[in-house]
Amino acid sequence: MHIHIINPNTTASMTQAIHHAAERQASTGTRLTASQPESGPVSIESHFDEVVSAVGVAQEVLKGEREGGIDAYIVACFGDPGLLAARELTRAPVIGIAEAAFHLATLISTRFSIVTTLSRTGIIAEHLLEQYGFRHHCRRIRAAEIPVLDLEHHPEVAFQRIVEECCRARDEDDIGAIVLGCGGMANLTQEISHEVGIPVVEGVSAALKLAESLVSLGLHTSKHGDLAYPRPKPFTGQFAALSDLHLPLK
Amino acid sequence: MHIHIINPNTTASMTQAIHHAAERQASTGTRLTASQPESGPVSIESHFDEVVSAVGVAQEVLKGEREGGIDAYIVACFGDPGLLAARELTRAPVIGIAEAAFHLATLISTRFSIVTTLSRTGIIAEHLLEQYGFRHHCRRIRAAEIPVLDLEHHPEVAFQRIVEECCRARDEDDIGAIVLGCGGMANLTQEISHEVGIPVVEGVSAALKLAESLVSLGLHTSKHGDLAYPRPKPFTGQFAALSDLHLPLK
Amino acid sequence: MHIHIINPNTTASMTQAIHHAAERQASTGTRLTASQPESGPVSIESHFDEVVSAVGVAQEVLKGEREGGIDAYIVACFGDPGLLAARELTRAPVIGIAEAAFHLATLISTRFSIVTTLSRTGIIAEHLLEQYGFRHHCRRIRAAEIPVLDLEHHPEVAFQRIVEECCRARDEDDIGAIVLGCGGMANLTQEISHEVGIPVVEGVSAALKLAESLVSLGLHTSKHGDLAYPRPKPFTGQFAALSDLHLPLK
Amino acid sequence: MHIHIINPNTTASMTQAIHHAAERQASTGTRLTASQPESGPVSIESHFDEVVSAVGVAQEVLKGEREGGIDAYIVACFGDPGLLAARELTRAPVIGIAEAAFHLATLISTRFSIVTTLSRTGIIAEHLLEQYGFRHHCRRIRAAEIPVLDLEHHPEVAFQRIVEECCRARDEDDIGAIVLGCGGMANLTQEISHEVGIPVVEGVSAALKLAESLVSLGLHTSKHGDLAYPRPKPFTGQFAALSDLHLPLK
Amino acid sequence: MHIHIINPNTTASMTQAIHHAAERQASTGTRLTASQPESGPVSIESHFDEVVSAVGVAQEVLKGEREGGIDAYIVACFGDPGLLAARELTRAPVIGIAEAAFHLATLISTRFSIVTTLSRTGIIAEHLLEQYGFRHHCRRIRAAEIPVLDLEHHPEVAFQRIVEECCRARDEDDIGAIVLGCGGMANLTQEISHEVGIPVVEGVSAALKLAESLVSLGLHTSKHGDLAYPRPKPFTGQFAALSDLHLPLK
Amino acid sequence: MHIHIINPNTTASMTQAIHHAAERQASTGTRLTASQPESGPVSIESHFDEVVSAVGVAQEVLKGEREGGIDAYIVACFGDPGLLAARELTRAPVIGIAEAAFHLATLISTRFSIVTTLSRTGIIAEHLLEQYGFRHHCRRIRAAEIPVLDLEHHPEVAFQRIVEECCRARDEDDIGAIVLGCGGMANLTQEISHEVGIPVVEGVSAALKLAESLVSLGLHTSKHGDLAYPRPKPFTGQFAALSDLHLPLK
Repeated sequence: MHIHIINPNTTASMTQAIHHAAERQASTGTRLTASQPESGPVSIESHFDEVVSAVGVAQEVLKGEREGGIDAYIVACFGDPGLLAARELTRAPVIGIAEAAFHLATLISTRFSIVTTLSRTGIIAEHLLEQYGFRHHCRRIRAAEIPVLDLEHHPEVAFQRIVEECCRARDEDDIGAIVLGCGGMANLTQEISHEVGIPVVEGVSAALKLAESLVSLGLHTSKHGDLAYPRPKPFTGQFAALSDLHLPLK
Repeated sequence: MHIHIINPNTTASMTQAIHHAAERQASTGTRLTASQPESGPVSIESHFDEVVSAVGVAQEVLKGEREGGIDAYIVACFGDPGLLAARELTRAPVIGIAEAAFHLATLISTRFSIVTTLSRTGIIAEHLLEQYGFRHHCRRIRAAEIPVLDLEHHPEVAFQRIVEECCRARDEDDIGAIVLGCGGMANLTQEISHEVGIPVVEGVSAALKLAESLVSLGLHTSKHGDLAYPRPKPFTGQFAALSDLHLPLK
Repeated sequence: MHIHIINPNTTASMTQAIHHAAERQASTGTRLTASQPESGPVSIESHFDEVVSAVGVAQEVLKGEREGGIDAYIVACFGDPGLLAARELTRAPVIGIAEAAFHLATLISTRFSIVTTLSRTGIIAEHLLEQYGFRHHCRRIRAAEIPVLDLEHHPEVAFQRIVEECCRARDEDDIGAIVLGCGGMANLTQEISHEVGIPVVEGVSAALKLAESLVSLGLHTSKHGDLAYPRPKPFTGQFAALSDLHLPLK
Repeated sequence: MHIHIINPNTTASMTQAIHHAAERQASTGTRLTASQPESGPVSIESHFDEVVSAVGVAQEVLKGEREGGIDAYIVACFGDPGLLAARELTRAPVIGIAEAAFHLATLISTRFSIVTTLSRTGIIAEHLLEQYGFRHHCRRIRAAEIPVLDLEHHPEVAFQRIVEECCRARDEDDIGAIVLGCGGMANLTQEISHEVGIPVVEGVSAALKLAESLVSLGLHTSKHGDLAYPRPKPFTGQFAALSDLHLPLK
Repeated sequence: MHIHIINPNTTASMTQAIHHAAERQASTGTRLTASQPESGPVSIESHFDEVVSAVGVAQEVLKGEREGGIDAYIVACFGDPGLLAARELTRAPVIGIAEAAFHLATLISTRFSIVTTLSRTGIIAEHLLEQYGFRHHCRRIRAAEIPVLDLEHHPEVAFQRIVEECCRARDEDDIGAIVLGCGGMANLTQEISHEVGIPVVEGVSAALKLAESLVSLGLHTSKHGDLAYPRPKPFTGQFAALSDLHLPLK
Repeated sequence: MHIHIINPNTTASMTQAIHHAAERQASTGTRLTASQPESGPVSIESHFDEVVSAVGVAQEVLKGEREGGIDAYIVACFGDPGLLAARELTRAPVIGIAEAAFHLATLISTRFSIVTTLSRTGIIAEHLLEQYGFRHHCRRIRAAEIPVLDLEHHPEVAFQRIVEECCRARDEDDIGAIVLGCGGMANLTQEISHEVGIPVVEGVSAALKLAESLVSLGLHTSKHGDLAYPRPKPFTGQFAALSDLHLPLK
């Protein structure tokens, strides 16, 4: 089984960290690859960053479809950028790390809180909770107020702030579990979890397991109805290469 | 990894069928066992049946906890009877097949319909959809109007009616996937799916994969907050054996 | 008119207290009886306790149906355990004390808060509010953090804590009324209400009045659709006596 | 116990019919009176009619408060016109017949449909369902397409159409009970119910029972918070008599 | 284009202030008139005040329809009293200032808070948010605790309290904009906005612009379905003049 | 006042048609310009098309900000692609045509239906209705099953199908208004409206009016909270030009 992780931002070191964190959780028989778009923002901290990164996600899926052999994709940014577009492009399951974390958190607790990076991204999580159906399962969205790349550049400070915010969530929010709201936190999960002492759900590993689950069940993205392959059509300018895609590619 | 499937009804042949269907989907390294309560209804087709079966589910979990070594439990009836009670009794993940099917269906489609056995059980599914957050992801709850045990006694007729209802769902409901609404359909999934031609999600295998996922991630049922072990106390009469449970058992 | 109160826990003294509290509110012409299951937990403070008690509730309804002459049942535990199952078993109205309190509270205020015993049971109330439709009418679920039986063993302390929490609700929650979240508080209502100075709704008396209302209107539990009598079938083991119930009994 | 029914329209014969229907359901010890506003529409079939009638409802409550001795009020039009205003004017419980019917219907069925007079009033019921929390308990709002006063002028035709629409609801809507959506149907309830064969809930009798319930429990409309007596102030013109009301009147 | 503003309370000086505030925002080519009902409360601070004022609103619309030439109406009280009734009476668009402010606030922010006069009117705003669909866009309803007419009588104190509450909303509520919850604040908007430093949306000007928008697009209140003209019928007593309205007038 | 319309697809003739339709509705004093992205799909009929077009929308806004002098932007595709991203990039109001049509439709009717092009895009509208709060105001999403560019290439056929579907909506959906679900229908609105005979709301003109409204009120996109300018950062590859944007541009 070949699962491909797409880090929607273009910071290769973060791709590696995510890849590495996922490797530790991959099942025997799962082959993991990871990539980031060639073009896009180095981190995703706004709707604008997200919009640009979503194109990169789609392009990475198309690249995967062209190369073939990929059984599932993971979109490893907590806003799940381009998720439904990615699903249109392939029969393979595509899992976002926000949705994955939400799903698993509801299986081990009745209510959870999210601890994310910057408070300005809270609205993205809020909209996803509404769309996915988990609005009432999430008690509160909290921010550690650390820029995404500080997870790479100042990991100790970032770690400390995240742990502190997680502890506040645990003590004040009437919850059973915490969802970590950034792909860049993937490699910190175990230590955070150890410090906080209640279940901490991280999206990359959650998505990996959901992807493995769907693949092993033979469940593919539905091509009946609104996730069918997009109609082929001309694209112009710098997106001309997307023209007349006759999906599925072969 | 040891996953134990609890068939909440007391029909051993159905337990075997479910066990068998699950075996085909189990990962290497997963040891599967299955049991049904000693006491309870032979099938679950009403709130009343469900209430009685929920005690059986709890008792099977306690039996498992006493024996030890179980990493996750599956509650294999589409009403998820006793699910939250079961979660209180153990640190191991406990997955219901209705929730499992709903979760996976939302990952491969934007909207799904349910095809269940008897229309009178539709309200149970409806309440679960509301509690879990999937009310708006489910377009319609349909019934093939076959009693649960007909899945065992008249499998051809049952199969035919289910397929017909699934096809109606596919053609009329503006959906991308179908959720099968009965544990007893587990061994028919592949054939149904083949006939219907769109993704068909069945809860036993879905729950198996979610259970494997949580276990492999080290995520356990939260013991912080409202799923903590129940307070020990006296139970009377035929339930006296439940008295003064000092969980976790060891 | 004969109304039978089922105390879902097995503490006979609490049954008596509830019975006594209800007697004070019964209309002329209402004959009140009360019982508790022979088997089950002495108090209900978790999903697990609730699951076991729900069987007891069903059995008490069946006992009532066998004896005959009961016009309505009350399920006197704030989680309304086994309510829909009980409704399936009889044409008589069956009222839960949580739903009853919620209904009446919305008739005299626009928003209310709940003051219950232990915070771990808050999730049970939360799920009921969602199912019944009152999620937005309840501002907050508060706990006095007293075990249920302390209402019997340490009534003064319990009373004091409940009053304090009710006063906090009154002063902080932007509400018009308080719902008491435990059947064991039934006999304290008037004193609590006197101390708190705003309407305090208690479920046992509320349920009694709703039951009297339905009976006097000739409204019975619908047997059309999903609350129809359960299909008769074999039950095994300690529940064998539930086999092949051909309801209505007679 | 003195309960006063306010028929919000000004058709005295309808007041009498409602009064008469209610009398049959009143408990021993309940004294029933009924009135209609001096001013207002002869029937209520639009938002406009409702707005005018709401003033009449308020004025009838004030008249009752001036005379004193009224323990509860019923607002006997299915749109519950002026309900919250009426509650502000008195400590006595005030019950609307729409809310009353919804509440009782949810106690005897899991889902209901409404059969009302004209389809144009459906939106009023829809808004009430949303505000009260019963949106998901109501499967469908149906209209018999009969003007309100035809219930008086052409009772046989009206009865026939209502019964037909109720039967359609019963057969097509996946429900357990029907709510009659007009006060003018109060005296037809038993015959309709007999024809339709499933529980039919009518609001006047339902409201009567809820009013009796609250009074006998000593529960009054909360004067804490947003249902407190209105601040006294000048009113001008034809409403000058409402000026400087120092409630409670004495 | 002739737009008529109805101040639902009867304080002419407030009508003038609202008219004046609106004039500053009117487009070239928009002729603005304003009136208040002849009869009704001098301010609207309760459901009771609102119910009475709603009749005045309807009467002002009828007056306008009789005179002719009015292209749109504005209902200038934050509870939108009589809004749907007013819409029934005319083909012209009718805009409430609460709805107008909510609509515009969601176009420039993702979440807003309301700052209103008295906390007792919060429930009115809450019900409107629910009915209009903006429940989740509003983080919090705050009150400056000033009676409506203090906006006229003690403008400096009122201004100060409103600004303080707006600043608290800005700093504590995780919002992008503030909605002013009283028509009487219309002439203070710019100064408040200047003090608070984030967008402040006031309903009168918002409604004016929405009215101009609809008129210039040729969009009229739908007469198809539930906003059709009311059926003509007798009205009695002080409302006899409303009898047998054959709308549209003329 | 300078309002710039962005047609998110790259079909210049459609931009012109939209521009032309808008011109007819622009107020005196409004200067209208229109453009389409240099790069992107020629029509938007899937999540994939939408994701690519959203980048184009953002780039057109940046181009506008660089040139300066634009008072508001309109995103003229019914999925509102890139709307929140666009809002982050400018203080000017940015209005999507789907949201605009929804808002105005709720002001002239209580319930509406949408008639869009292809049924596969219904899910996009459904998600927007949920996010914006209008889920319950929309009775049904209907598709005329015409590809977007057929509006240009086969206008008569397209017109006919749209009118037919609108008439079905009018007759079957219990609505007061219809929302046209495609920017390409902008120039057909008046004729459609004439054929259908009930209010038909089209998003381009609706957005134009909302944009004019906000500008004339001096209401800008909030820069407080989650719509603040994005943090400047490196972008790579074909998006390198987006690097280190220090907004606001000057």
